[in-house]
Amino acid sequence: MATMHDVAKLAGVSVSTVSYALTGARPVSEKTRARVQVAMDELGYQPNAIARSLASRRTRIIAMLFPSIERGLSGTALEFVTAAAETARERGYHLVLWPIGDDEVGETRALIHQHLADGVLVMEVRLDDPRVGLLRESRTPFTLIGRTADSEALDYADIDFEATVRDALEHIVGLGHRHIALLSHSKTSHDAGYGPTVRVGEAFSRYMAEHGLGTVIYHCDDSADAGRAAVNELFDTNPEITALVTMNDSATLGAVAELLESGRRIPDDISVLSIVSSPRVGALSHPRLTTMSAPGPELGRLGVTSLIDRIESGDRAILHELVPCRLDLQATTGVPPDRAPYRRPRTANPS
Amino acid sequence: MATMHDVAKLAGVSVSTVSYALTGARPVSEKTRARVQVAMDELGYQPNAIARSLASRRTRIIAMLFPSIERGLSGTALEFVTAAAETARERGYHLVLWPIGDDEVGETRALIHQHLADGVLVMEVRLDDPRVGLLRESRTPFTLIGRTADSEALDYADIDFEATVRDALEHIVGLGHRHIALLSHSKTSHDAGYGPTVRVGEAFSRYMAEHGLGTVIYHCDDSADAGRAAVNELFDTNPEITALVTMNDSATLGAVAELLESGRRIPDDISVLSIVSSPRVGALSHPRLTTMSAPGPELGRLGVTSLIDRIESGDRAILHELVPCRLDLQATTGVPPDRAPYRRPRTANPS
Repeated sequence: MATMHDVAKLAGVSVSTVSYALTGARPVSEKTRARVQVAMDELGYQPNAIARSLASRRTRIIAMLFPSIERGLSGTALEFVTAAAETARERGYHLVLWPIGDDEVGETRALIHQHLADGVLVMEVRLDDPRVGLLRESRTPFTLIGRTADSEALDYADIDFEATVRDALEHIVGLGHRHIALLSHSKTSHDAGYGPTVRVGEAFSRYMAEHGLGTVIYHCDDSADAGRAAVNELFDTNPEITALVTMNDSATLGAVAELLESGRRIPDDISVLSIVSSPRVGALSHPRLTTMSAPGPELGRLGVTSLIDRIESGDRAILHELVPCRLDLQATTGVPPDRAPYRRPRTANPS
Repeated sequence: MATMHDVAKLAGVSVSTVSYALTGARPVSEKTRARVQVAMDELGYQPNAIARSLASRRTRIIAMLFPSIERGLSGTALEFVTAAAETARERGYHLVLWPIGDDEVGETRALIHQHLADGVLVMEVRLDDPRVGLLRESRTPFTLIGRTADSEALDYADIDFEATVRDALEHIVGLGHRHIALLSHSKTSHDAGYGPTVRVGEAFSRYMAEHGLGTVIYHCDDSADAGRAAVNELFDTNPEITALVTMNDSATLGAVAELLESGRRIPDDISVLSIVSSPRVGALSHPRLTTMSAPGPELGRLGVTSLIDRIESGDRAILHELVPCRLDLQATTGVPPDRAPYRRPRTANPS
């Protein structure tokens, strides 16, 4: 059976060039790649994960464990995936998405047992997440995009929800709003301990209390129709509300559409601030949404860099990184109606 | 070294049960799975892709070659992925997404050389697509979601763009519109021979000519901001237009927002029909979009079923399946302004 050395000799290149041509670990010119291919074909050489893994025990694949493909990749998650895929590529790795359905434990186990990935990125982390235990036991290197309740000993990169909610309320309360509701992800996600839902809810209650204000939190499925239903119910039961802080892109767009259809003006009657979102999603709406944009690209780069470092050199400093969302001021936040008289004349007569 | 037989014996189950527990090819109870796991741990048995592949030359993985993760997974693509992942699971396979960047040929080659997937689903197919040649040469089973210019000999499932555009124009022309523009995907995607852009453009020109009408086609990047810019330019140069047929979810939402912000009423001044879309995306908009929804779930099921049949029994009838989009009538299509007098009194006085 032909070896990689035979291929290198016939192609007139070094063994490592053959290896790079196969793994994509380093860039190789199309011409060289073609020469290697011809040599392989001639010798009947079959390079594959099997042979290579036996030699190196590496596949140069990073798998992203993604539980909720059904709910869709939000704009945030997409920017994350893009940055993660690029960073992996720069380091000679390939990122694959491993979507998992209802049998989360079984499918995480399947991924581990396949031995296909050198390392794993864990998305949509819950406070108590069974995937973490499985990965630790298997000694597969992994990085959380999110945090469990106790992540002291784990690598993670996450959104700084604490700072994000604080900044969101500073903006909204600073405009003069006193009656503010949070429109969040589903009750199911909250009860399952999904990190963002729990952490944003807690921070919202705490900061509202610090401002001397009461808390209204409305949980909502991730769809435009759920967002439409939510605002109807919310304003029926809490007609005094003048501002919504939202964390749920699809529901937010539905909510804004429904508010307009019911004759409410945004922001004159109701302000809307969409957090853990992006200007890209904000531009889908009329009026354009004021957002606090999620640090998807930063988290993607941080997570992959840390994971590859961990794969390539076991002992290194642990990754504990929290990145806040940034405010992008657009058309959906303004002063509440009871403050409006002080504003209206100025906008009506821009001398 | 322990074998699978040893594991089966110790666990008190059959060898095929051990195999099912490892591959997920058939459902196995948690209890049995745990027993197999304990036996494997005790014997130090390392089941992995390597050993299993050497035995069976199968990984039970289907890879989805996805070129444009950067542009995002549209609602359509997501529904496709969800259905494809579920169908694969039912057949004991796992679907992974293999995102590819600029070096399409290199990354397709990398996937082939990894020998990780038993079969490949090719997304975002162009009329002349180099991935097809690479996959054919490698003898990897594959199914196109889309079509090349000459796909006679290839398995494919695609949208019936011909029928979709015909039905779209029957609806719009039937309402009385004569000045209709197509807002499509980018010029780049057209020049690259991306199937939907080319086929919808051709069908639109042909059916408009059959109706005795001229053609305006506007190419637009896939973002809300591009859609906003597009309608401004479009109505500057073609103020007579009363209806938009759109195929570009993000751009459509931006276009509708911009039309409203510029004081145009939808559908009173401008009708909008979004094709290759979905009611789910339509609900994001105010007013709710009339759509022709893409058959994502059908295509996902068809593609995966055909691919697995192909993997498991080489010779079978070829898959040539075209599925049209279905009209979901909502709030953004109506009669053009010059027909409006006949309508207005009826809606204003609903006696």
